[in-house]
Amino acid sequence: MSNPRFGIWLIGARGCVATTAITGLFALQKGLARSTGLVSELPPFAHLPLPTWDQFVVGGHEIRAVSLVSEAQRLHHESHVLTADLLAACHEDFEKTEQNIRPGTLWNVGETICQLAADAPHQDPIADHEPSGRHVVERLKADLQAFRQHHQLAEVVVVNVASTEASTALKEQKTTTGGGTGLWPANWREMQPLVDRADCPLPASSLYAISALDLGMPYINFTPSLGSQPQGLDDLARIRNTCHAGRDGKTGETLLKSVLAPMFVSRHLDVLSWVGHNIFGNLDGKVLDHPANKAAKLQSKDQLLGKIFGYDPETLVSIEHIASLGDWKTAWDHIHFKGFLDTPMTMQITWQGCDSLLAAPLVLDLIRFTLAAHRRAETGPLTFLSSFFKSPLGVEEHAFPKQYDWLLDWARQST
Amino acid sequence: MSNPRFGIWLIGARGCVATTAITGLFALQKGLARSTGLVSELPPFAHLPLPTWDQFVVGGHEIRAVSLVSEAQRLHHESHVLTADLLAACHEDFEKTEQNIRPGTLWNVGETICQLAADAPHQDPIADHEPSGRHVVERLKADLQAFRQHHQLAEVVVVNVASTEASTALKEQKTTTGGGTGLWPANWREMQPLVDRADCPLPASSLYAISALDLGMPYINFTPSLGSQPQGLDDLARIRNTCHAGRDGKTGETLLKSVLAPMFVSRHLDVLSWVGHNIFGNLDGKVLDHPANKAAKLQSKDQLLGKIFGYDPETLVSIEHIASLGDWKTAWDHIHFKGFLDTPMTMQITWQGCDSLLAAPLVLDLIRFTLAAHRRAETGPLTFLSSFFKSPLGVEEHAFPKQYDWLLDWARQST
Amino acid sequence: MSNPRFGIWLIGARGCVATTAITGLFALQKGLARSTGLVSELPPFAHLPLPTWDQFVVGGHEIRAVSLVSEAQRLHHESHVLTADLLAACHEDFEKTEQNIRPGTLWNVGETICQLAADAPHQDPIADHEPSGRHVVERLKADLQAFRQHHQLAEVVVVNVASTEASTALKEQKTTTGGGTGLWPANWREMQPLVDRADCPLPASSLYAISALDLGMPYINFTPSLGSQPQGLDDLARIRNTCHAGRDGKTGETLLKSVLAPMFVSRHLDVLSWVGHNIFGNLDGKVLDHPANKAAKLQSKDQLLGKIFGYDPETLVSIEHIASLGDWKTAWDHIHFKGFLDTPMTMQITWQGCDSLLAAPLVLDLIRFTLAAHRRAETGPLTFLSSFFKSPLGVEEHAFPKQYDWLLDWARQST
Amino acid sequence: MSNPRFGIWLIGARGCVATTAITGLFALQKGLARSTGLVSELPPFAHLPLPTWDQFVVGGHEIRAVSLVSEAQRLHHESHVLTADLLAACHEDFEKTEQNIRPGTLWNVGETICQLAADAPHQDPIADHEPSGRHVVERLKADLQAFRQHHQLAEVVVVNVASTEASTALKEQKTTTGGGTGLWPANWREMQPLVDRADCPLPASSLYAISALDLGMPYINFTPSLGSQPQGLDDLARIRNTCHAGRDGKTGETLLKSVLAPMFVSRHLDVLSWVGHNIFGNLDGKVLDHPANKAAKLQSKDQLLGKIFGYDPETLVSIEHIASLGDWKTAWDHIHFKGFLDTPMTMQITWQGCDSLLAAPLVLDLIRFTLAAHRRAETGPLTFLSSFFKSPLGVEEHAFPKQYDWLLDWARQST
Repeated sequence: MSNPRFGIWLIGARGCVATTAITGLFALQKGLARSTGLVSELPPFAHLPLPTWDQFVVGGHEIRAVSLVSEAQRLHHESHVLTADLLAACHEDFEKTEQNIRPGTLWNVGETICQLAADAPHQDPIADHEPSGRHVVERLKADLQAFRQHHQLAEVVVVNVASTEASTALKEQKTTTGGGTGLWPANWREMQPLVDRADCPLPASSLYAISALDLGMPYINFTPSLGSQPQGLDDLARIRNTCHAGRDGKTGETLLKSVLAPMFVSRHLDVLSWVGHNIFGNLDGKVLDHPANKAAKLQSKDQLLGKIFGYDPETLVSIEHIASLGDWKTAWDHIHFKGFLDTPMTMQITWQGCDSLLAAPLVLDLIRFTLAAHRRAETGPLTFLSSFFKSPLGVEEHAFPKQYDWLLDWARQST
Repeated sequence: MSNPRFGIWLIGARGCVATTAITGLFALQKGLARSTGLVSELPPFAHLPLPTWDQFVVGGHEIRAVSLVSEAQRLHHESHVLTADLLAACHEDFEKTEQNIRPGTLWNVGETICQLAADAPHQDPIADHEPSGRHVVERLKADLQAFRQHHQLAEVVVVNVASTEASTALKEQKTTTGGGTGLWPANWREMQPLVDRADCPLPASSLYAISALDLGMPYINFTPSLGSQPQGLDDLARIRNTCHAGRDGKTGETLLKSVLAPMFVSRHLDVLSWVGHNIFGNLDGKVLDHPANKAAKLQSKDQLLGKIFGYDPETLVSIEHIASLGDWKTAWDHIHFKGFLDTPMTMQITWQGCDSLLAAPLVLDLIRFTLAAHRRAETGPLTFLSSFFKSPLGVEEHAFPKQYDWLLDWARQST
Repeated sequence: MSNPRFGIWLIGARGCVATTAITGLFALQKGLARSTGLVSELPPFAHLPLPTWDQFVVGGHEIRAVSLVSEAQRLHHESHVLTADLLAACHEDFEKTEQNIRPGTLWNVGETICQLAADAPHQDPIADHEPSGRHVVERLKADLQAFRQHHQLAEVVVVNVASTEASTALKEQKTTTGGGTGLWPANWREMQPLVDRADCPLPASSLYAISALDLGMPYINFTPSLGSQPQGLDDLARIRNTCHAGRDGKTGETLLKSVLAPMFVSRHLDVLSWVGHNIFGNLDGKVLDHPANKAAKLQSKDQLLGKIFGYDPETLVSIEHIASLGDWKTAWDHIHFKGFLDTPMTMQITWQGCDSLLAAPLVLDLIRFTLAAHRRAETGPLTFLSSFFKSPLGVEEHAFPKQYDWLLDWARQST
Repeated sequence: MSNPRFGIWLIGARGCVATTAITGLFALQKGLARSTGLVSELPPFAHLPLPTWDQFVVGGHEIRAVSLVSEAQRLHHESHVLTADLLAACHEDFEKTEQNIRPGTLWNVGETICQLAADAPHQDPIADHEPSGRHVVERLKADLQAFRQHHQLAEVVVVNVASTEASTALKEQKTTTGGGTGLWPANWREMQPLVDRADCPLPASSLYAISALDLGMPYINFTPSLGSQPQGLDDLARIRNTCHAGRDGKTGETLLKSVLAPMFVSRHLDVLSWVGHNIFGNLDGKVLDHPANKAAKLQSKDQLLGKIFGYDPETLVSIEHIASLGDWKTAWDHIHFKGFLDTPMTMQITWQGCDSLLAAPLVLDLIRFTLAAHRRAETGPLTFLSSFFKSPLGVEEHAFPKQYDWLLDWARQST
C-alpha cells in the first residue's frame, strides 16, 4: 500500500468513549457512517492533508477484563445507541483490534479505578507491583514500539480516554499552593529522578504521557487526569520534537457554558449564579461518584466561568451517577442574572446527550488534527485545539467562539 | 452649558420599551442605576466619545391616550419591575417629558394598532384622515424640528419602538416575490411620488423614517415593521448624509439562537428541528396575537437558523399572548439534533426575561453608538450594529459572535 | 382448547398505536414482555377474572396500503422502540394477523385522512363510493361476523385507534349549539334514517361503532373522533345489551393535567394561565397538523382545566407536527399561578414519552376491563373507565385520583 | 369583646416563614389580602367553626438580633415579595408584635444555628448556659404563660418555624438502629429524667414542644427538627389532653412528588430514578448548607418515594444554598421511568416558588385546623393533617390525594 498507515493508541481502550470511537472509525472505514459530529469533516478543513479513515489502525492499554464486543453490546442494550446492524458489521474488526490491546497500569490511579481492574486476569502486570515508575514506563514504551513495528506505522498518536484518576486534584493543588514551581519540576531533567523512584508520585496518566512523548509520539489527554500537564513533560515533548494536547474533552455542559457565557459578557448582563447539575450513568460517572475522582472533574468544569466573566458569580457544579441513564447525560443549568435596573432574570438549559457519542468524534478529530500538526513539525502544547478542551493546555481563553477562531486560523495558515 | 445636548425621539413614546428606556435614562442621569445591561458601558467602548447620559433630552410620537406615569406604574404593579422608589424619583421628569410627546400617525398600521388608539383624544390628527403620505410626513417633520429647536439640540436620533405593524409582511413579500426591485423603488427619486399619493402604500414606520432621514436625523428601527428597509429610504439617508440601523431588536430567544446555532455548526451537529414557543403578556404581545402583525415578527425570528446552518431544519416559532405574564417573556426552545452515528440528542432552553428591561438598554446603546457614527459622518445602514438586530440591515451574517466582533472592530477603529 | 377465545378488532389496525398494541400482545403471549405499563396487571386487579393474553386473536380495519411488519420496522428505525429481537420473534404472528385485516371506510373522515389512503390498492371498497351509510355498516358488520365465526370467538371487542377525523368538532359544535338534542337524535330509532341516507352525516368512527354495537360487541373509542358519543348510539348499545367506553386515551400531557390540577385546587393556588405545547412526529401528529382534525383534539385536551378548577384560567394548547421526533412526544407545560398575597409563581413540566408505547398498554387494559364488564352484563357507557380518557363518556369528573378511585371501587365490587 | 382571642406562638418568630405568616395575618385582618393560598378558606371547610383572622394575637421565641420590620423589608428588597404598601400598612402591628417576642433557646441546635445568634444582645439567656433542659423548659413555659395571661387568650398554639436543627438526624438514626424503643423512652414518665439532666440530649425543638404540651397547648412542628416526634412527647400530649402535628411542611418539591408519584403507580410505570435538585437563597437554605442540618431535611424529602412506590428507585435529593435567589426556590426534578416493553421515558419539572409565601398560609391553616380539633378534644397526633407534612406524624400514607381525602373526611365529620 502506498499510503502511510497511522496508529491510534487508546488508553482505556475498552471504555465507552474508546469503544464508540473504535466503532465509529470502523463505520467510517466501511462507509456506514456519515460525517455528522466530526469537526475535521467540515468545509473549512477540507483542504488540509488530514489522514483518511482507512489509514488508521487501533491499539491500546486497558485495565479491565472486558471485551470490545461486550462493551459495544452494553452500549447498545443499555443506552440504545450503536445499532445492531453496525455492531454485526464490525464484529471481525473488534476481534482483530483486541489483538492490539495490552494491560495498562494502575500506578497512583486511586482506589476506585483499582477496583475496576479487580476481575482482570492480567492483574499482575498492571498492578502497583512494578518496582518503580521507570519500570512502568519501559513496559508501556515496549508496547507502543511493538505496535508501531508490527503494523509498520508511520506515526502513532496516544490518546488518554480512561476514567478520571483520583490523585490529580490533590497533586495539582499542592503544585499550585507550593508556589510557581510547585510539586513538579519545571523541566524534564529534574523530572526524571521522580520517575525512577519506587514511590514515583506521578499518576498513570503521566506515565503514559512520558512513554508516548519519549518515543516522539504525540499525546492527547481527553480526561481531567494530570497527563502531560506538568511543565517537565512539555519540556520532554519539545526535546523529542513532538506535541501534546489536552485536557478534558469539552463535550456538553461545559461546551454550552463556553458558548453562552460570552453572550452575557457581550450584553453586560451580570451573572449572579450559575448552577449546573449533571446526571449520567456510565462507568465514568460511577468513577466520578467518588469524591477524590470528582474533585478534578469539577474543577475542570467550573473554572471557566470566572475566567470568561472576569468576576466570580456563585457557581455550583454537581455530577451524580444515576445508573438508569446509562451513557446518556442530562445536564440542567440554571443561570440567574441581572439585567438593566438590577432586574433579575433566569435562563435554564437542559442538555440530553449521549456522552460517548459526543466524545468519540472529537477524539477522532483530535487525532487527525494532531497528526497534521505533528507532520508540520509543531511541538509543545497545540493551543489551536483549545476549543476541544475544558482546561486547554497553555491557554487562558475559555470563550468557545474565540477558541474556534484559532482552529480556523490554523487551518487557513496550513494550506 | 458647554456640552452639546442630544435629542432622543421615540416613536411609541409611552409604550413599555420607551417607558422603560426613559425611566432608565432618568435613573442613569440621577446616578440611581448601574451600568448593567448597557453594552456601551463595557470596557471595549470606554475610549469612545459617546454622549453622556445627562446630554440627552427625550420626546416622541404616540397614538395612545395614556401617560408615562401610568405606564410606568403598570409595569411596576403588573410585572414587578421598576421600583416604587425609582418611579417616585422620576415623577417630575416624566411630567416634563410629556410636554415633548406629540400625536403619532396610524397610516397603514393595520386594524389592531388602530384599536389601541381608540380612546385617544387627539384621534383626529393621528388618524388616517390626512390627505396623503406627504401630509403626514410634513406634520411629523414639523414635530421633530420644533423639538430640535426648542431644546437647542445638536442632533436628534429617531427610534421606532412602537408595536409591530400589520402590513409589513405582506408588503415585503410582494417586494421579494416581485423580483429584484419589488414593490418599492430602489431610489428616493422614484419613491417620492408614492409618498405624495392619497393611497400612499408605505406604513407609518416608513413615514417616520422618511421624516427623520429627510431632516438628516439618524433613524433606528427597533421593530420588525418596514421602517427604513426599502432601498429608496437608504438612498434618502445617503443623500441627506445621515445613517440608519435596524431591524427588530435582538433581545431574547433570537439572541440565544444566534449564539447557539453557530455552536452546532462548529461541532458539525446536524440540527433536525428547532422549535421555539414564546409566551408573554404585554401590549406588544397582544398586538402580535393578530396574525397579520405576527407574520412580520415570526419571519424575523425564524430566518436566521437557515442562514447560519446553510440548510433548513424543521423550524417552528410561535408567539402567544398570555396576559398573566405581563412584561415577562418565557421562551421555550426545543432543539433536536443528530450527533455522531446519527444519534439523536436534545437541548432545551427556558428563558425568562423581562421584555422591556432587555430592550430598553439596547435602545440607549444604539442611540449612543449611532450618534458617534453620525458624528464621524458614516452614512447608510450601520452594519457594525448588526449584533443588536434580528434582521440586520445590509448584512447576511446572523451569528452573534461574528456580529459582535464587528462592533468591537468598529470601536477599535474609532479611536 | 377449553378456554374461550376473544377477538380484538382494531380500527386503524396498522397505525402506530395498533401496531404497538399488537406487538405488545404477541410479546406478552410469548413471555417476552413484562407487565410494566399495564394497569390491569396491578395488584388491585389481580383477583378479577380478566382474560389472559393467550386468549386473544387480533383483526381489524385499515385504510392504508402498508403492512404490520413495515410499520413495526418504521417504529424501530425512526423512533428507536420495539427491539429488533422482538420484531424478529413476532414476524410470523404479524403475517398471520394480516389475514384478519379488512379495508376500512373513509366515510366523512375528511380530506387529510383520505389522502393517507391514496396508495391503497383496495381503494374502491373503502372509498366514499358506497351508496349509503347503511351499506358501509353492513359491509363492516359482515367483516366482524366473519372474524368471530372463523376464529370461533366468544366475544369481540372493537377499538378505534385510527387517526382523528376532521369532522367531529364541527358536528359536535352544531350538536351543542343546537340545544339539548343537537344534530344527533337522542335515540336509536330516530338515528337509523340518518344512517340510511346517501348523505349520511355520521363519520366513519360512528359507523364502526354502530356496526359493533348492533352486533352486541363492546366498542371502545380511544380517539377524539365522534364514535359512540351520540346518545342514539348509547341507546343502541343498551338495546343490544352491550357497553361502550371512550373518548380519547389520556396518555401524556392531559394525564398530567388531570393529576396536577387537583393539587392547585387542594392548596387554593389560583392558576392564572396554563400553556401546553406538544410536538411529535408520527402519523397522528401529521393528521392533527390540519386545523379541522386538530380542533377536536384541542378541545378534548383543554376542557378539563376549567372543569377541575371551577373557573377558567387563560389556557393554550398547541399540537405541532415535528417529523424529526418520530413517535416521541415532547410536551412543555408552563403553569403560572398565584400564591398567598398574590405572589406569582411558576411550574414547568417537560414530558418526553413515546406516544404509541404509552397508548398501547392502555388499549390492552381497556379491552380486558371492558370484556370483564361485558361478561357481567354491564351496558351503556363504562364510567368506571373514565381515568383512561380525556373526554370520558357520561362523566363530568376530570380529576385523575377521583377517576382512578372509581376503577378501584369497581374492581373491589367485582369480586 | 365577646369573641375569644387565640394566641399564635411562633418559634423562630422573625424568620422568613414567621415574618411572612405574621404579615399575611395582618393583611387578612385589615382586608388587604385575598384568601388565595389558604386551604382553610376553601369551600369544603366553610362550615367549620374555625377562628377568624381577627381573633389572633402573635408572639414567639427568637434567637437572632433582627426585627420583624427589617426581615419583612429584606424579603421585599431581596425577593420582590410583600409590597411596599402592605409593609407600610402593617408597620405599627409589627412594632406591637415585637413586644411579644422573647429570647429562644440554643439547646442542642448545633453550631450553624448558634452562629446565627452570635449578634444577639440577649445571648446569655438563650445560650447553652442554662444548667439543665428542665431550666430551659421552665423559662419557655413562663414565656408562654405570660403571653396567655397578658392577652387573655382562650388558647395558644405553638408552631415551630425555626431553621432545621443539626442534631435531629443523628439522634433519630440512633433511635432507629437501637431497635423499637431507641434512644428515646416510649413514655413521658421515663422521658422526664432526660429533661432534668445537665446534658439533656433533647434538642431545642423538643424542649419547646414539651413546654407547650405540658401547658396543654397544641404544638405544630413545621420543620424537620425532632420536635414532638418521640413517643414520650406524644404521651405527654395525651396526658395533658392536647394534640400535636408535624413534621416538615410540604410546600413544594415534596408536595409535587406526593402528587405525581401515585400517578406512576396507578399507570404501572416503573420509576427507575428520581433526581431532585433544589436551590434557594434564604436563611433556611444557608443553614441547610451544613451537612448535619441538611441530613434531616434530605431524609424527610426522600423517604416518601419508596413508600408510595413499594420499591426503591434510584433517588437523589440535593438542597443547595444559592444566595442570589433570596427566598425563591427552584426545584428541578428529573424522573426517568420505564413504560410498556421497557421503553425508557422522561419527565422533568421545574418549580419556581417563593418559599415563605408557600409556607406561611399553611402555617395559618394548621393553626386554625389544630385549634378546631383541640376544641373538639382531639388528642395525640392529628393525622388528618398529614397532607400538610413531608413526614406526617403517626401516618405511613404519603400519597397526597389520599392524605387530602382524610382532611375532607375530617371536615365532613366535624359538622
